[in-house]
Amino acid sequence: MTLSSYIEATRRDVEAALPTYLPAPDACPTVLLEAMKYSLLGGGKRLRPILCLASGDAVGADRAMLMPTACAIEMIHTYSLIHDDLPAMDNDTLRRGRPTLHVVAGEGQAILAGDGLLTLAFQVISAHPRSADPAFMTRKIRAIELVAGAAGAVGMVGGQAIDLACVTPDPQGRVAPALDAVALRHMHLKKTGALIRASATAGAILGGAASPLVEAIDTAAREFGLAFQIVDDILDVEGASAELGKTAGKDAAAGKPTYPSLFGLDASKRMAADCLARAETALASVQLADSPLMGIGRWIIERRN
Amino acid sequence: MTLSSYIEATRRDVEAALPTYLPAPDACPTVLLEAMKYSLLGGGKRLRPILCLASGDAVGADRAMLMPTACAIEMIHTYSLIHDDLPAMDNDTLRRGRPTLHVVAGEGQAILAGDGLLTLAFQVISAHPRSADPAFMTRKIRAIELVAGAAGAVGMVGGQAIDLACVTPDPQGRVAPALDAVALRHMHLKKTGALIRASATAGAILGGAASPLVEAIDTAAREFGLAFQIVDDILDVEGASAELGKTAGKDAAAGKPTYPSLFGLDASKRMAADCLARAETALASVQLADSPLMGIGRWIIERRN
Repeated sequence: MTLSSYIEATRRDVEAALPTYLPAPDACPTVLLEAMKYSLLGGGKRLRPILCLASGDAVGADRAMLMPTACAIEMIHTYSLIHDDLPAMDNDTLRRGRPTLHVVAGEGQAILAGDGLLTLAFQVISAHPRSADPAFMTRKIRAIELVAGAAGAVGMVGGQAIDLACVTPDPQGRVAPALDAVALRHMHLKKTGALIRASATAGAILGGAASPLVEAIDTAAREFGLAFQIVDDILDVEGASAELGKTAGKDAAAGKPTYPSLFGLDASKRMAADCLARAETALASVQLADSPLMGIGRWIIERRN
Repeated sequence: MTLSSYIEATRRDVEAALPTYLPAPDACPTVLLEAMKYSLLGGGKRLRPILCLASGDAVGADRAMLMPTACAIEMIHTYSLIHDDLPAMDNDTLRRGRPTLHVVAGEGQAILAGDGLLTLAFQVISAHPRSADPAFMTRKIRAIELVAGAAGAVGMVGGQAIDLACVTPDPQGRVAPALDAVALRHMHLKKTGALIRASATAGAILGGAASPLVEAIDTAAREFGLAFQIVDDILDVEGASAELGKTAGKDAAAGKPTYPSLFGLDASKRMAADCLARAETALASVQLADSPLMGIGRWIIERRN
């Protein structure tokens, strides 16, 4: 199987599984369920669940044990996009080639749909798959702790708070100073990197991998997360809005520091390649340099959207 | 020990424990941590964690095993207040006698502080207390599933979505019809009742109680949740803003249906008393009619704020 057919088949599995974890229509207000579906089932690369499943494959896990967590992580990613797009945050009106949720459903319902998806994620991990195996219960608890840590105030939410403070005045009119290179990397490791990293690491943990294997995958996934953000910044400069499915050039227009604005395009591309090389070293140490997991890392820096 | 000293001592324990579960200052952006602290540590009745701990006491649990979950539920309650108060939702500027978080920190940081507290709640339940006991791990997983269900789209978030749809026009200018008595009860069972109920039930589950005991507590806690909301509506009519610590008369002014507006004040008070009587029947069936847990139910309908 080629890498692209592996990714495509895995994405199809994720697309098929995602709606099965949504609340039953008779248990959830229609206005809310429709809002959650609009964003969750509206396409996307599905990078995080694919990474989670590829990591599970790399350690020989049964995909059925990982799919709920893979989908839960996509719910967390989706909620973060909904909230980031809000007028009080990035104020974006286009996402994945469609109007953002708050444009379609109103701000209040968009906030609630995000809250609902974030909460649902933890219900899905805890409830699925049903299992009476105490060892698997313990792995689930570790996965919940890991994912919540990556998604929360010391991870993704924290990164977004730093990003926001640099562009949006607080009620006293104060704006935080622009980030330098070190602070930019720190912010991105939190905002984008933490959940990407946790996706792969959670797959290895739920798959029952031994510590050295979990650690090697965790090291590689950290580099994937950083590479992803660098490439995102490059695409924001080079890409067209139609291809990206979101507004291109937005970061530069907002005066946000980006890798290209701090280092130039060529150096940024070299930095992304360096991330990938470090990831490969880590995965080679556990004989996974030729795995689909490593292939997904390459896909991350070669993508056009 | 009198009931009021039991409640006071338990509240003090909760107040002491809450800050210990916040992220370390060097791991979390200051702007975000301060926002989370402003709302989480800014007072409140602490009803939900007290209920959780009292339920644990009723089944003979070690409080140290329950305190993290009790505090996590208070984090979830706090996040829900932050988001409900936002301009796109209830647009409230006063809460617990102080300006709401978005007034102090700005809308974006308020949204993120809510997201951070919700996410932190699941990290706290999964990470604390550290235990290698597989039976306790399994109880934790059950507690996470229960709390996430109660807090999410089929519970609290769903109730808020129904409530919002009745007062705020969507982008197409449509407003849902006003709720009748059945729909009002349904909405309140979700919006307020679900998390109150889960607080007590999670305490019984984490305490390792047998099914009949868990079920009796769950039945009583459902009634407590409904009584709480009926009393809230009564206080909105009868109370003064200063005593309530939030804007009184707000629901009536917004044209929201409430128990007093649908049934009158006297019938509403009788309905709250009926809830309590049903709760007492359930708890009496497991010899808990004289427990502090039942006393907290009485406190719920006698409170003035």
